[in-house]
Amino acid sequence: MFVPPLALAALDPAEVTRLFAALGVLLVAARVLGELARKLNQPSVLGELAAGILLGPALLGRASPEVHAWLFASEGPTRVVLDGIRTLAVSLFLLVAGLEVDLSRVLRQGRAASSVGILGIGVPFGLGFAGAWFFPSFIGWSGDVARGIHALFFATALSISALPVIAKTLIDLHLYRSDFGMVVIASAMFDDLVGWMVFAVLLGMIGADGAPEALVGVVASIAAFAALVLTLGRWAIHRVLPWVQAHTSWPSGVLAFAIALALFGGALTEHLGLHAIFGAFLTGVALGDSSHLRERTRTTIREFVSSFFAPLFFAGIGVGIDFVAHFDLVLCTVVMTIACAGKIGGAALGARMAGMDRRESLAIGFAMNARGSMEIVLGLTALQHGLIDERMFVALVVMALLTSVMSGPFIQRALGRRRPRRFARLLSQKAFVQRLAAPDRRGVVRELSAALARASGLDTAQIDAAVWAREQVGTTAIGDGIAIPHARIPGLARPRIAFGLAPQGVDFDAPDGHAARLVFLILTPAEQPGAQLEILADISRTLQDPDVRSKLVEVTSWTELLAALRADVDAR
Amino acid sequence: MFVPPLALAALDPAEVTRLFAALGVLLVAARVLGELARKLNQPSVLGELAAGILLGPALLGRASPEVHAWLFASEGPTRVVLDGIRTLAVSLFLLVAGLEVDLSRVLRQGRAASSVGILGIGVPFGLGFAGAWFFPSFIGWSGDVARGIHALFFATALSISALPVIAKTLIDLHLYRSDFGMVVIASAMFDDLVGWMVFAVLLGMIGADGAPEALVGVVASIAAFAALVLTLGRWAIHRVLPWVQAHTSWPSGVLAFAIALALFGGALTEHLGLHAIFGAFLTGVALGDSSHLRERTRTTIREFVSSFFAPLFFAGIGVGIDFVAHFDLVLCTVVMTIACAGKIGGAALGARMAGMDRRESLAIGFAMNARGSMEIVLGLTALQHGLIDERMFVALVVMALLTSVMSGPFIQRALGRRRPRRFARLLSQKAFVQRLAAPDRRGVVRELSAALARASGLDTAQIDAAVWAREQVGTTAIGDGIAIPHARIPGLARPRIAFGLAPQGVDFDAPDGHAARLVFLILTPAEQPGAQLEILADISRTLQDPDVRSKLVEVTSWTELLAALRADVDAR
Repeated sequence: MFVPPLALAALDPAEVTRLFAALGVLLVAARVLGELARKLNQPSVLGELAAGILLGPALLGRASPEVHAWLFASEGPTRVVLDGIRTLAVSLFLLVAGLEVDLSRVLRQGRAASSVGILGIGVPFGLGFAGAWFFPSFIGWSGDVARGIHALFFATALSISALPVIAKTLIDLHLYRSDFGMVVIASAMFDDLVGWMVFAVLLGMIGADGAPEALVGVVASIAAFAALVLTLGRWAIHRVLPWVQAHTSWPSGVLAFAIALALFGGALTEHLGLHAIFGAFLTGVALGDSSHLRERTRTTIREFVSSFFAPLFFAGIGVGIDFVAHFDLVLCTVVMTIACAGKIGGAALGARMAGMDRRESLAIGFAMNARGSMEIVLGLTALQHGLIDERMFVALVVMALLTSVMSGPFIQRALGRRRPRRFARLLSQKAFVQRLAAPDRRGVVRELSAALARASGLDTAQIDAAVWAREQVGTTAIGDGIAIPHARIPGLARPRIAFGLAPQGVDFDAPDGHAARLVFLILTPAEQPGAQLEILADISRTLQDPDVRSKLVEVTSWTELLAALRADVDAR
Repeated sequence: MFVPPLALAALDPAEVTRLFAALGVLLVAARVLGELARKLNQPSVLGELAAGILLGPALLGRASPEVHAWLFASEGPTRVVLDGIRTLAVSLFLLVAGLEVDLSRVLRQGRAASSVGILGIGVPFGLGFAGAWFFPSFIGWSGDVARGIHALFFATALSISALPVIAKTLIDLHLYRSDFGMVVIASAMFDDLVGWMVFAVLLGMIGADGAPEALVGVVASIAAFAALVLTLGRWAIHRVLPWVQAHTSWPSGVLAFAIALALFGGALTEHLGLHAIFGAFLTGVALGDSSHLRERTRTTIREFVSSFFAPLFFAGIGVGIDFVAHFDLVLCTVVMTIACAGKIGGAALGARMAGMDRRESLAIGFAMNARGSMEIVLGLTALQHGLIDERMFVALVVMALLTSVMSGPFIQRALGRRRPRRFARLLSQKAFVQRLAAPDRRGVVRELSAALARASGLDTAQIDAAVWAREQVGTTAIGDGIAIPHARIPGLARPRIAFGLAPQGVDFDAPDGHAARLVFLILTPAEQPGAQLEILADISRTLQDPDVRSKLVEVTSWTELLAALRADVDAR
C-alpha cells in the first residue's frame, strides 16, 4: 500500500493562508456580534448568524466580491476543510444539545409536561402537515421531493423546540426553577427528542426512495440505534464515566471521552444513511442522563463547543447562503403564522388540559414557541438533503429567530399584565425572620415553616413536609442569592409568605453557585393554580434590581423591610 | 459570481463517516496512551505519538491494511480535512507554546540565564552545523537541498528546547520556583525564541532559492514581522486584553480572541512564505507577555488546545509515517549523541561561567536537554518542506523523546547523588515557630526572619530584606502547602533553616493555589552556590510523601517535629 509522505501536504501555503484568514474572520465576527446580541439580552446565535450574513454573499459578496470569493472559495481544498470543520462543529453542537436533555426529568414531571409536550408537538405537526399538504406551492414545495415528504418535513420543522434558548429565557426571567419552568423544560426536552427522531425517520425515507421494505428497514435501524444508545449505551456510559472523571487529567480526559463518543455516534448514524448529528445528539442524551456527570464536566463541554465550534458553524451558514436574495416576505409570514399558531396554541391547550389557568397556559405557549438554533440546524440539514430550497430555509431561519426573540417579552406580558398580587402585601411581621438561625437548607425551610405556622395558624409539620418535598425535586434557588421554597396547600384560604434573612448565606445549591441570603417561603392554595407563579414573578421582578437586594439583606426591622419594599413600589 | 448552495456539501456521507471515525479513533488512542504516559510521569506527548504509531502504517497498516487504508485515506476529501485540522492544531499548539514564553522574565534573569541560554544554543548549533557540514551523508543529507541549508537545519534542530516539557519536569521535581528553575526556564525561553527565529529564516532561505536579494527580503520581512508583533502588536494586545476579559462572556470571548489572533498571525506568516506556526507562536509570545493576561485565561487556552487539538496533531504524525521502516539505529545514535553532547555541554558550560558549581551546572545541562514536542513540530515542518527525509525525522523524534524522558531522573542524579546536606540537621529549636502568628506572606517572612535571627545572632532586618527581595521576584511556594522562602547571605558561616507551621494556611500565591501550611526559611552562604539547591531538593524529596506533610502540620513540639522527621529518615 502506498502511503504518501506527510511532506506532500494537501494544502499549499496559499490555501493555508486563506483557511486561517477565513476561520479567523468568521470567529471574530461571530463572537463580536454574538456578544452584542447577549448584551441586548438576545440569544448569541442571533449575532453569530448575523455575522455570517454580513460576511456572506448578501453583504460582503455584494460590497466586495473579490474579498468574499477569496475568503470563502466555492471549491478547492479550503472549501473542503471548512465543510469538514462545519460538519464537526454542528455534531458537537448537537452533542451539547443532547447533554441538556434530562430523560429522568421528563419522566418525573408527569401529567403537565406530557400534556404540554404532546399537544405542543402534535398540534403544530398537524397544522404544518395539513398546510403543506393542501397548499404545497404556497409552502414552498418545489416538486423535487414527494409532496408527502415535503409536508412531513414542514410539519417536523414547526414542531421542534429549542431547549437552550428556552432555558436561557427562563433563567433570565428567574422562572427556570419554578414549577412553571420545570414543566416548560420537560416538555421542550420531550419535543426535541421526538422531533429529532421523526426528522431522522424522514431523512431515512428520502434515502429509501419510498420503497416500503427499505422504509421499514430505515425506521427499524433508527429505532434500534436509539434504543441501543439509550439503554445499553446509557448503562455503559454510566459505568465508565466516574472512572474517566476520576482517573484522567482534567479536563482533557472527559472532554476527549465525550467528543469521541459523539464522533463515533455520528459516524454510525451517518453510515446508517442518517446525518451524523443524530448520533451526536443521542450520545449526548445518554451521557447527560448519567447522574455521574458532574455539573462542571457539563459546563466544560458546553464551553468548549460554544467558544469555537458553535460560532464557526452558525457564522458559516450565512456565508454560504444569500439571505437577501432568498428572502421571501410572503413565505416568511406564512411560515411564521403557522408556526406560532400551532406551537403556542398546542402548548397552551396542553397546559389548560393539565389544569393551569389561562394566563399561565398562554405563557407556556410563548415559552415553548422559541425555535432558536435547533430549527436552524434542522433546516440546514434539510437544505443539504434537498428537502427544501434556500427560500424556505431563509424563512425557517427568520421564524426561528423571531420566535426566540419574542419569547421572553411575551411570557412577561402574559404573566404580568394585571400584576394583581403584590408579594409585599402578603408578608406579615409574624412571618418575618430577621436573622435565620439554621445553617443549612433543610433547617431554613423548617425555620420559615415554623414562622409561617405562627402567622397563619397552620401546622408547622404540614407546611414543612410539603415545601421540603418540592425542594427535593430540585432547588428553588433562583440565583443572585435568592431562594423561594414553595408549595401548594389544599384548602388554604389565601397565599402566604414567610421571609427570612441569612446575611452569612445558606447553600441552596443555586444554579449560579451563590449562597442564598434572601429566602421567601410561599404557600398558595392548591385551588388557585396561577397564584404561585404570579407571586414568584413579582418577587423576581422586584429583586431584579441589585439595589433592592442589597437593601433587603441589610434591614434590621420589620419597618425597615416595609420601607425597602415601599421605596421600590414608589420608584415604579 | 456563482456561489454553490450549501446543499452541495463537499463531503458525502461515506466521507463524513470516515472522517468522524478517524478523528474519534485518533482522539481516543491519543488520550488513553497520553494518560498512561502521565501516570508513568512521562510527558503526554510520548503517549500521543505512540498512539499514532500504533494506528499508523508501522503497526495497524501491517496488521490490517484495509482498516488503516479506510480510516486514513491517502487522498480524497477526508485526507484534506484531516490535513487542515492538523495545520490548525499545530498552529494552536504553538500559540500555547508562545504563551508560556515570558519575555520580561528572560530579561529579568540577567547574567545566569543569558550565559546558559547563549551557550545552550550556541554550542549545539556549532556542533550540529560542523557535524552536518563535514559529514553530510552521515547526518542524513540526501542531496535534495543545499548542503549549507541542511547543515543549518540540523544545527537548529539540535539547539531548540522544549519549554513545556522542561517546565513539567521542574514542577515534578519541586524545582520550578527555585533559583535553579528560574534560570533554566528563562534560558529555555530564550533558546525557543532564538531557535524558532533561526528556523523561520531557514525556511525563508529555501523559498528564496539562495538568491541573495530574495534572502535579504526574507530575513527583513521575518525581522519586521517579529519586531512588529513584539512591539506594536504586544502594545495593542495589552490595551485590548483587559477589555476582552472584562466585557465578553467567559471563556468564549477570550478564547476566540486568542485563537483569532493566532489564526491571523499564522495566515500572515504563511503568506510571507514561512509556516503558519511562526505567526501563531509570535502572537502567543505577545499575548503571554501582557501582564493583563489572567492566569485563568492562560490555563483555559492551554486546556482548550491540549484537550482536542494537541492529541489530534501528535497522534496524526504517527499515522502518516512508518516509524518502523524509517528507523535507522545508526542515525538515531549519531543524532542523539551530538544533540546531548552539544546541549548538555553548552548549557552546563554557561552555568559554570555564571558561577554555579559543578553539580548544579550539570543539572542545568540535563534540564535544558529536553526537546519534547517542539523538536517534533520543527522536524515535521522541515519534512514537509523537503529539508529532511523520513529517516532523519524519525531520528529527531526518537532524540526528542529520549532527551525528554531522561531529563528528570538525570537532574535528580546530578543534584542528589551524595545527599550531603540533610535539612533536618540544619533546623534548630530556637528557629522553630510552632504556630505562625502572621496572617500573610509578608508577615510570615518577617516572623521567620526574626526566629532565625534569634537562633543565629544575625540581624532580623538583614535576613528579612534579603528573603523578601527574593520573594518579590516570584513566589517560593512549591505547591502541596509548602513554601520555602530563601536567600543567599554573603559571609554566612553555614546554611540555616527556620521552620514555621501555619495550620490555618497562609496565601503564598502558590502555583497549585493551596495555602502554605509548612514554611521553611533557608539562608545559605553566598560562597556556597550549590548549598541552597541541595537543601531545597532535600526538603522537597522528604515532603513528597503526603504522610510526612500531614504529620508535620500536626506536630505540637520540637520533639515531635524531630520524631516526624526521624521516622522519615528511618523509613528509607
